Amino acid sequence: MKKELLFCPLGGSGEIGMNMNLFGYGEPGNHKWIMVDIGVTFADDTIPGIDLIYPDPGFIVERKDNLLGIILTHAHEDHIGAIAHLWPKLKCKIFATPFTEYITLTHSILEPNGLRIKTPAGVVLHTGDWKVDPNPLIGDEINAKRLKEIGDEGVLAMICDSTNVFSAGRSGSELDVRKNLLNIMGRLKKRIIVTSFASNVARMETAFYCAEQTGRQISLVGRSMHRIYKAARQCGYLQNTIDPIDPREAKNFAREKIVYLCTGSQGEPMGAMMRISNYTHPDVFIEKGDAVIFSSKIIPGNEKKLYKLHNQLVKDGIEVISEETEFIHVSGHPNREDLKDMYQWVKPKCVIPVHGEHRHMIEHINFAKEMQVPHPVQVENGDIVKLYPGEAPEVYDKAPSGRLYLDGNVSVEEDSQSIKDRKNLSSNGYLEVTILITPKGNIHNNPVTTFRGLPIYEKDEFLYGLEDEIEKTTRFFKLGNRQQESNLIDALKIACRKFTKEKTGKRPYTNINLVRI
Amino acid sequence: MKKELLFCPLGGSGEIGMNMNLFGYGEPGNHKWIMVDIGVTFADDTIPGIDLIYPDPGFIVERKDNLLGIILTHAHEDHIGAIAHLWPKLKCKIFATPFTEYITLTHSILEPNGLRIKTPAGVVLHTGDWKVDPNPLIGDEINAKRLKEIGDEGVLAMICDSTNVFSAGRSGSELDVRKNLLNIMGRLKKRIIVTSFASNVARMETAFYCAEQTGRQISLVGRSMHRIYKAARQCGYLQNTIDPIDPREAKNFAREKIVYLCTGSQGEPMGAMMRISNYTHPDVFIEKGDAVIFSSKIIPGNEKKLYKLHNQLVKDGIEVISEETEFIHVSGHPNREDLKDMYQWVKPKCVIPVHGEHRHMIEHINFAKEMQVPHPVQVENGDIVKLYPGEAPEVYDKAPSGRLYLDGNVSVEEDSQSIKDRKNLSSNGYLEVTILITPKGNIHNNPVTTFRGLPIYEKDEFLYGLEDEIEKTTRFFKLGNRQQESNLIDALKIACRKFTKEKTGKRPYTNINLVRI
Repeated sequence: MKKELLFCPLGGSGEIGMNMNLFGYGEPGNHKWIMVDIGVTFADDTIPGIDLIYPDPGFIVERKDNLLGIILTHAHEDHIGAIAHLWPKLKCKIFATPFTEYITLTHSILEPNGLRIKTPAGVVLHTGDWKVDPNPLIGDEINAKRLKEIGDEGVLAMICDSTNVFSAGRSGSELDVRKNLLNIMGRLKKRIIVTSFASNVARMETAFYCAEQTGRQISLVGRSMHRIYKAARQCGYLQNTIDPIDPREAKNFAREKIVYLCTGSQGEPMGAMMRISNYTHPDVFIEKGDAVIFSSKIIPGNEKKLYKLHNQLVKDGIEVISEETEFIHVSGHPNREDLKDMYQWVKPKCVIPVHGEHRHMIEHINFAKEMQVPHPVQVENGDIVKLYPGEAPEVYDKAPSGRLYLDGNVSVEEDSQSIKDRKNLSSNGYLEVTILITPKGNIHNNPVTTFRGLPIYEKDEFLYGLEDEIEKTTRFFKLGNRQQESNLIDALKIACRKFTKEKTGKRPYTNINLVRI
Repeated sequence: MKKELLFCPLGGSGEIGMNMNLFGYGEPGNHKWIMVDIGVTFADDTIPGIDLIYPDPGFIVERKDNLLGIILTHAHEDHIGAIAHLWPKLKCKIFATPFTEYITLTHSILEPNGLRIKTPAGVVLHTGDWKVDPNPLIGDEINAKRLKEIGDEGVLAMICDSTNVFSAGRSGSELDVRKNLLNIMGRLKKRIIVTSFASNVARMETAFYCAEQTGRQISLVGRSMHRIYKAARQCGYLQNTIDPIDPREAKNFAREKIVYLCTGSQGEPMGAMMRISNYTHPDVFIEKGDAVIFSSKIIPGNEKKLYKLHNQLVKDGIEVISEETEFIHVSGHPNREDLKDMYQWVKPKCVIPVHGEHRHMIEHINFAKEMQVPHPVQVENGDIVKLYPGEAPEVYDKAPSGRLYLDGNVSVEEDSQSIKDRKNLSSNGYLEVTILITPKGNIHNNPVTTFRGLPIYEKDEFLYGLEDEIEKTTRFFKLGNRQQESNLIDALKIACRKFTKEKTGKRPYTNINLVRI
């Protein structure tokens, strides 16, 4: 049988985050697979009690004997965060396989890599996350020469980042951010707090550089800031910067002589920035006349949280500088002009947009058409594209796909009962009634009633009223008869909910226990 | 004693929504008050089980005998929505008092009014919500002549809308939206669905007009669309438009011959637009090649919900047209050039920015300074500004203020136990254990255990394990002794939570009942 080359995204195609891409090569029904990236995404308040979400790996778990390994393009959570949770099901090597070669790109993290995947059917270029940054400050420039060589050899398909496809022009350079931050920090006269993603080490270096240039000390605040600083130093970066000082020591410096670089740039409730703005941080004080620089993106969905933080600061006379008002951040993803470069270097026969919501990927398909790419292919999670053989690459099958939620330490499905129940509890609260029945079929004592999450201020009054309802309802049933007891439970549930609705307007989740003693 | 003129916002100053403003005049300690607007705001997923939020009216409730009345500037929910909930505590007239006069403004609703409040201490202009629209399409133009007259007579203070103070230029005209919508609808070949706020009757008229001009029927979808259409007709508007047809009838028309105007422009889960995009709407079908026009703003905080809706549509080949890609919406609030007009007409001695978050109001203060206003005054909810007498208006006292949540039918405070408990339940679920103790101090039968919201798939196994823990814990306590029983409850709570944490990773809210039989 003729061998095939397949591509299948299990995550990240149709949503931002949790990237997981599969490439398969071999005879139909007997492919060898590699997985590129294995990321997570973070839950919001619409999914209570859940932090982490990752792709359902079922399709590849079933084929794990044919999984050659997992290749990680770079160290952002949306590309590596699910290793700890999913690797036990795969138990494969995590590595760069012999038919893969890393090509240096630029992004908002150290060492972002594209993959050239060479197969007997042809070469596939998987970009990972990238941008064109002529001055990345840290790490090498994008390897345009190598990308052109690859293009000249012929590329069957390019799997490409879609994040910024709605943004015209270029995503810009870290160097320009540095120049502008230096200007801004030069004019600020009091305490400066810069907040950004810890993983953006070039930005970290910029903060150190600007502090030094403006005659200030720098102090790191927040656990991941310290962790990344240490890791970057161990990898040989940040060798020529000033030494940071401890925040407790920093308190001894005049406010115009210090810069704090801190976590919490997205308004995370427990992040350093939120605690500083709440005046609950043990080591960092902020006061009228100080300035906070948000050197980071406002991640969609975080607007309200972040504006709340801005409001808290400005109302106390603290200046807020953000990407909305100044050029102090560049994205790590390619804008349209950057994409154009990549397309012209690589000249792929087929482009498959990934790393985006549907609206990004469809815009990217339109962009690829403008770029005269012969075969743009629109995919979503689970789509299996046959890249070779065939007239043209196309989606020809569907792998099972979906999202798994980490609930406590249990992996649950999107429609899990535990989450449904908690959503119900979060809106309505609960009411538990336990009724004891004597061997003679009488009710023993008062029912045991507990509730939670109901707006009840006169608890005793509520409970007396509820007991009356229970007593009235019970009167019509003969206890000791199983069928009647089951009907009684239903009747009590209705009566208790009705009474609670009248008193509070809420319909709690209601559980009735009948217990024989 | 010298009489004073006071201003105090109880809502809307420091947040978007729930506007409530008080003006007081009289001797210190004996002011007569008027209230301007009494609005609500809507809760998001961070406050589970709550829909409506309104200002705590305690300050004015205590003074209700001196409350002359409530004046409503216009019919948006953020200006009138709390009447039903708060009026019973105030029982005052709702009217335009003799010392008030309405000035016609333009906004995104019919009949927006500014108030000229004439007092012996001077004139105050309260703008309400407004913009400068030279072609509002429905309703009169902004009464610039009257505003200039008022300005010429001298204005002590202007209380002014801050919503769009970050936006340069003008907010634009409904007429331009109409022209552009007509162009867009002219080029669309299949079914068209327009979604916008029902209360924007000018936009509604535009949809009717464009349908007629492009040879299509129009059909209204969603309850509030019908309600507002009827109300507008009763008030004498929409007299020269085509008649809408019933959505059930609309199904009989070819898809290129129909426009639907529907609710749910913010991606509301139960809104018509969401149900249409889910293919669960009983009367409106949508298919590949159709187009959805979101002729409305993306309200901050709704981005994720709305993008989800966009994604759902575009992935099925439906074109999405929104304010991000086309000029199909104008704001009802004044941009900076509009504000400049108002400042120049009114020439107030003092400006108090309201209707905004802190960041908007502080930017508005800076704007007022640029406009050479002698006395811009920064306020937040509860601030009492003395407008007269004195050298210059200033905040001189603080009224109690806050937010009340409508929880079921009960008004609760922001830190209410019911909401705290539901948040806890929504993250952690609950576990209830009832243990029956015989008169001799023995445990009767097995404990009665119920739980909810926990990721437990082997229920029996979990319960057996839990019962073992309970049995082990109970062994060390002497039942029948009250102090020991109280310690036992604590010990059981700890043991049950620990066991559940081990099995599921969750720490549920845990309640232990010891019941004597």
